[in-house]
Formats: sequence, structure tokens, C-alpha cells
Amino acid sequence: MKAMVLLSGGVDSTTLLAMAVEEYGRENVMALSMSYGQKHQRELWSAEQIAGHYGVEKRDLNLAEIFCHSNSSLLAHSEESIPRGSYGEQKGSAADGLVSTYVPFRNGLFLAAAASVALGSGCGVLCYGAHHDDVAVAAYPDCSAAFVEAMDRAIFEGSGGQLRVMAPFVEWDKAQIVKKGLELGVPYELTWSCYEGGETPCGHCGTCKDRQKAFELNGVKDPLLIGG
Amino acid sequence: MKAMVLLSGGVDSTTLLAMAVEEYGRENVMALSMSYGQKHQRELWSAEQIAGHYGVEKRDLNLAEIFCHSNSSLLAHSEESIPRGSYGEQKGSAADGLVSTYVPFRNGLFLAAAASVALGSGCGVLCYGAHHDDVAVAAYPDCSAAFVEAMDRAIFEGSGGQLRVMAPFVEWDKAQIVKKGLELGVPYELTWSCYEGGETPCGHCGTCKDRQKAFELNGVKDPLLIGG
Repeated sequence: MKAMVLLSGGVDSTTLLAMAVEEYGRENVMALSMSYGQKHQRELWSAEQIAGHYGVEKRDLNLAEIFCHSNSSLLAHSEESIPRGSYGEQKGSAADGLVSTYVPFRNGLFLAAAASVALGSGCGVLCYGAHHDDVAVAAYPDCSAAFVEAMDRAIFEGSGGQLRVMAPFVEWDKAQIVKKGLELGVPYELTWSCYEGGETPCGHCGTCKDRQKAFELNGVKDPLLIGG
Repeated sequence: MKAMVLLSGGVDSTTLLAMAVEEYGRENVMALSMSYGQKHQRELWSAEQIAGHYGVEKRDLNLAEIFCHSNSSLLAHSEESIPRGSYGEQKGSAADGLVSTYVPFRNGLFLAAAASVALGSGCGVLCYGAHHDDVAVAAYPDCSAAFVEAMDRAIFEGSGGQLRVMAPFVEWDKAQIVKKGLELGVPYELTWSCYEGGETPCGHCGTCKDRQKAFELNGVKDPLLIGG
């Protein structure tokens, strides 16, 4: 069985890649990274390093054109700045109750595009690192269990039963993911979570704060902060 | 309520556009067409003419990069030729039981990309022209009722309840669609169904044969054949 892992270069998808390599063997695992017009390319560079670390084949897709009409603060063409503070503090600040870093149906599109590439590459499993904090804390609707379950069903039906979505973190929080990753020796010093693209993480955006907390809850310091 | 219609320039999506214009008013309807590396651009030209006929705003997306690893005979980079004969004659000829014109999860990706654009444009409805013959005759798995239902659920959940998929033809055959379109005065002479990109339809590919039959069952001649 061949597996494709959606790899952003962050903590969750890197841990998932480590699990997939353990389960299927590195020769049967492919990583797929997405450009979608994000404000910086730093996470794509991280994804490259991580795929190299695990010795897996990596592909890249550019979906920026599709998001060119979105005004999410996460996108390079947006004039909105990325809000500071944890997701909990931002929640519901936008008119539609979504955080301003929500990119319309971004993860749905990532999964659909990945499904197409995975099918073209003979993969039977598509691994997706959505986790519970993305819904409970950040309120991203395209990370919920209901969404993942529906996408799995759509991809299974739409591929004539050739491909399934595996999202083992959908009920986990980030601290549980880091715990698993530490057991597997994930090189977290290579990962990147910050929404800004500086030399070191900004430490103030929602994803920086949640990442720090996840390491703290495991009694370790984020290696990116030690190294940076 | 604003609606987006996935418009290929064929019989089904053009009829759906006519229905959406009737239901929501042309100022609230947008058409979206996809380039995905298809062997010819003829259908995109048709979509342009049809959007002009109805006076609706139209957008275009290019998804060709995503399909570059597929070997579907429908794609320009494929060396496979498009099979002749009706879908029924082709069914199951490929190793995986799918017709060779199947592009991996194409319609899933179309819907996901359209959802993203629709949400960025304030649409609450996404109209999709999949019909029963696509499943029963052509055996495209990404046109089935189960697939459409799952995608609707995924898009509804993944958008935080902002967008629904409307696919009124999912239990209809093509003859029923043409019947509805004839009532609405759809300009079928502007549509294009043939997988080849000639001056006139080839008359031999699966979609040509099914189109001719749908008009015949309504007791009329395909206006494209009269004009061509």
C-alpha cells in the first residue's frame, strides 16, 4: 500500500509523516506540499528539509490562483495583517464568526487536489493532519471530524473505492501529537509553524502560542526556540 | 442569495445555468469554467458564449498542473486516444474498471475549487450538473448521488455552514435535462459536448453519441448538427 501525506512543514503533518513512514515504509510514502499564496515560503522550505530527512519523494502544487479572490489575512495579496494572540482570543472576531486566517475551504481543496495526485500515483491512503485544537481552539471548520468524515466519503466514492483519507489526529490535541512525535524522534527543529516568515518564530501569532504550549505540556522546550 | 454554476459549456451545465438564472436572477448568478489540460479548448469557448448569452459574470480557473500526473485519455499530455463508441461499449475496458476518459477525482477537485471561489464571492449555492447517465452509462464515480451527497456535506461543514451544493440532475438522465432545457429556451447551438475539438462534433465519441440520443428522445434534432 502506498500513502500520500499532506505536508505543510508544521508540527502536525511532520508527526503524521513520521507515523506513515513507520507504518508503510519510506519507499511507499510520498509527501505533497501546497503553495496557495501564503505570505511567506518559510514553511515550504521546512517541508523540503523534512522530506529530505525521511528520504521520501516529495511533490509540490501551486493553488494560489484559486484563492486570489479570498481576503484571508494569511494570503500574500491581502492587506489585512495576521492577528496576534491565541486563537481563543481571536475567535468570532470576524463578521462570519471565523478567524481572519481562515482561507475559504482551503483544506477541502487541499484534500481534493491531493486525492487527484494520490490516485495518479497509485496511492490507496491519503494522510491528513487535522487535529482537534484546529476546531475547538482556532474554529477552522475545515478541520472538524464531520468535515473529514464527509471528505473521506466523497474521496472514496468519487475514486471508485480506490482511496481513503486517514486523519488519526482528528480527536487529538496538539500536546498529544507532540507526545507521539517525541516518541518517534521527529526532528521538530526542522518544522515551522509561525504564520510570519521571519528568521525565528514571532512568538505572538495563534499558531506560535499553541505550539509553545504543546511542547510545554510535554515538559520539553520547543527545539526551534532553543536553536533560534 | 448568490449562486455559482460550474459551467463546462456542455448540455447539462448550460441547462443548469438557465435554471439558476430563472431561480436567482442573472445578477445573482456567476459561472465558473475550468481548464484542466483537456485536449481542446473548444468547450471553454462555448462556455464563454453561453455566459455572454445569459449576461452572467464568468470566471476561469486553470487546474492543469494538478492533473499532470494523470494518464487519462482526455488530457492533452496523454498519448492515449479518446475511445470511440458509446460509454456502454467502453465500460470496464480499463484495468481498474473505469473508462479511460476518467480523470482522477476531477469533479471532486472542481467542486472544492469552485467552493473556495464561491465562498470568496459571497455565494450560498454551488450548482453542479452531474446526472444519472454519467454514473449508469459512463461509470464516472465522481458523478454518483453518494459522491455528490458527501461533497455537499463536506462543503457545508468545511465552510462553517455558508455553502451548499445543488445538483438537481443527479437522478435525471440526459433526455430529461434536454426536455427541461427546451422548455427554458436554452441555446443548445452554443453548447459543445464532443471530446474532440474539431469544427463540428465527431459524432463517434461517448459524449457525442449520448447527446444525439438525448435530443432524439425529445423528438428534435441536435441544433449543433443542423448548424454544423
